[in-house]
Amino acid sequence: MSIQTVAHKFVELCRQGKNFDVMRTMYSPTIVSVEGDGKETAGQGPVIKKSEDWVADKTFHGETVRGPFFNGAAPDQFAVYFTLDVTPKATGERLTLEEVAVYTVKNHDKIRREQFYYEGIH
Amino acid sequence: MSIQTVAHKFVELCRQGKNFDVMRTMYSPTIVSVEGDGKETAGQGPVIKKSEDWVADKTFHGETVRGPFFNGAAPDQFAVYFTLDVTPKATGERLTLEEVAVYTVKNHDKIRREQFYYEGIH
Repeated sequence: MSIQTVAHKFVELCRQGKNFDVMRTMYSPTIVSVEGDGKETAGQGPVIKKSEDWVADKTFHGETVRGPFFNGAAPDQFAVYFTLDVTPKATGERLTLEEVAVYTVKNHDKIRREQFYYEGIH
Repeated sequence: MSIQTVAHKFVELCRQGKNFDVMRTMYSPTIVSVEGDGKETAGQGPVIKKSEDWVADKTFHGETVRGPFFNGAAPDQFAVYFTLDVTPKATGERLTLEEVAVYTVKNHDKIRREQFYYEGIH
């Protein structure tokens, strides 16, 4: 698959709310996920667990997904802009989180790296 | 200046519509600008000229600037999500362009690289 095909499939599934299907079917077993603070999580299982933990302490109202976006000098990458509408259970205060994510796809196949850019705690 | 200080100054000036002030005051003389197709433009003068040419054949109605966003594994970078509300003079058809830009700041000072991610012609 071309990077465009992978990226559009990714975005389409996210828009359907199938984020965990994306992680299970489109992520490499050796994916590395890098959070905004630079902390890396390696491996498909641990990366899915990280997202499960993130969701568990929030009420998730929905998300918007803009993109995918491409740059010819980085032909194995695509970028996405997300907004996440959530209420953390700890505070009960509904808020909109924003982030840019850059995904790296090797060999036109699985996503091998995701790197999140944001500000503050997510 | 910290990367956060540089990035927030950049975003604030863009929100005031001072994009060319940003290029004149915050860009390194040796900046490299990479468009979505991978084409590179090197040097502050040529990069400003590229933007002047881009604006010249459009009516520019406004822009939104979301961010800045950061990742600790890329401590010299910040990301921004832009929407650009324009009418190309060639078509007369108003449209909203979207892009993610990743900026690289060296030595906590000037912007040395800008890399635009988008889809289609901009």
